[in-house]
Amino acid sequence: MTPIITVFRRSPDRGRGLARDMRVRWALEEVGQPYDVRPVSFAEMKEAAHLALQPFGQIPTYEDGGLVLFESGSIVLHVAERHAGLLPDDADARARAITWMFAALNTVEPPILELATARLLESDKPWSAARLPLVAGRVRDRLTPLSDRLGDAEWLDGAFSAGDLMMVSVLLRLRASGLLDDYPKLAAYVARGEARPAYKRAFAAQYTPPAGERG
Amino acid sequence: MTPIITVFRRSPDRGRGLARDMRVRWALEEVGQPYDVRPVSFAEMKEAAHLALQPFGQIPTYEDGGLVLFESGSIVLHVAERHAGLLPDDADARARAITWMFAALNTVEPPILELATARLLESDKPWSAARLPLVAGRVRDRLTPLSDRLGDAEWLDGAFSAGDLMMVSVLLRLRASGLLDDYPKLAAYVARGEARPAYKRAFAAQYTPPAGERG
Repeated sequence: MTPIITVFRRSPDRGRGLARDMRVRWALEEVGQPYDVRPVSFAEMKEAAHLALQPFGQIPTYEDGGLVLFESGSIVLHVAERHAGLLPDDADARARAITWMFAALNTVEPPILELATARLLESDKPWSAARLPLVAGRVRDRLTPLSDRLGDAEWLDGAFSAGDLMMVSVLLRLRASGLLDDYPKLAAYVARGEARPAYKRAFAAQYTPPAGERG
Repeated sequence: MTPIITVFRRSPDRGRGLARDMRVRWALEEVGQPYDVRPVSFAEMKEAAHLALQPFGQIPTYEDGGLVLFESGSIVLHVAERHAGLLPDDADARARAITWMFAALNTVEPPILELATARLLESDKPWSAARLPLVAGRVRDRLTPLSDRLGDAEWLDGAFSAGDLMMVSVLLRLRASGLLDDYPKLAAYVARGEARPAYKRAFAAQYTPPAGERG
């Protein structure tokens, strides 16, 4: 069976790789697993057929035979556990790689999401200018210790893993804010992730050229 | 070996069960795994010895022989994978239970964290009163579909699992806000979690009686 993932019919980021299907595509490319894509519109995402797959009305979902999963973290872990290439063989190293997945999603991403919300959904509010530095400070409170831990290493714990895939994916959401520029070690870490052939294939598959460049 | 977890020496919530060590204690109690506790002060959490275990200077950590883990999600998953009681035997059902763990931590908890931040860290800001309803609305945007999916079921997907443990733990953080009162199905779900003997044992182990009630 070829697994099927759902993706935005028209991604809000126009294919800059920030939608959460990118994490799943990247994982599938890393392990060499072909996949099919089913695009869904924003209206379709809130319909009963999609809500049966994804109760919060979001993308991506993952269908493989009778199995239906959602949550990019869960899907990436599922792919990583069933194919070689994203988790070490040693049991302890494997548990540590999974720890970095959770750190990306539950410690580093929440303040990044809050910053995105402040920039996108509250930019017209009277408090926007005064509040943004507070929110950015909470992001820095995560980036500083993360950069300290990474140091001059290539990846967070030995070889590239699903933990790095998730951490790079989360940090990429910061690029537009400019915050990464203050953390050269993290910026280089993100660049190493983007330079991986699997990342490039996944990115190309979801990229939508600007209207003027379409064939 | 008896695993060792780090916990707050003095929890900011005074043992109301909201600190993240509670999730790990609950999981260990569900599977019947004894554990030792090492309390750390806020000053100790930022020292090199603790940062070597937990790069973000937080609790809990989990040490078992040579293995060191952090992130409550990762620790609970590690415990659930190695003992019976928190994940179904069927592979597909297991992957779905893990999906609910990620949904709790990466879809439901972020807006709850944002609400906690707005209530605790920004309550003295001039925008606080105007902004709180917006943040509460983002929490409701998660609670409504979650309640719809749960419906009248006892747990999210069949028998109680690590997914329910994590979702109940995340929802508990909302109690002080009163938001759960508008979702009777979710309130009853949380109450079912709190009624489990393993939850009660974990809660008692971390509860600090008010000063006047101490023996």
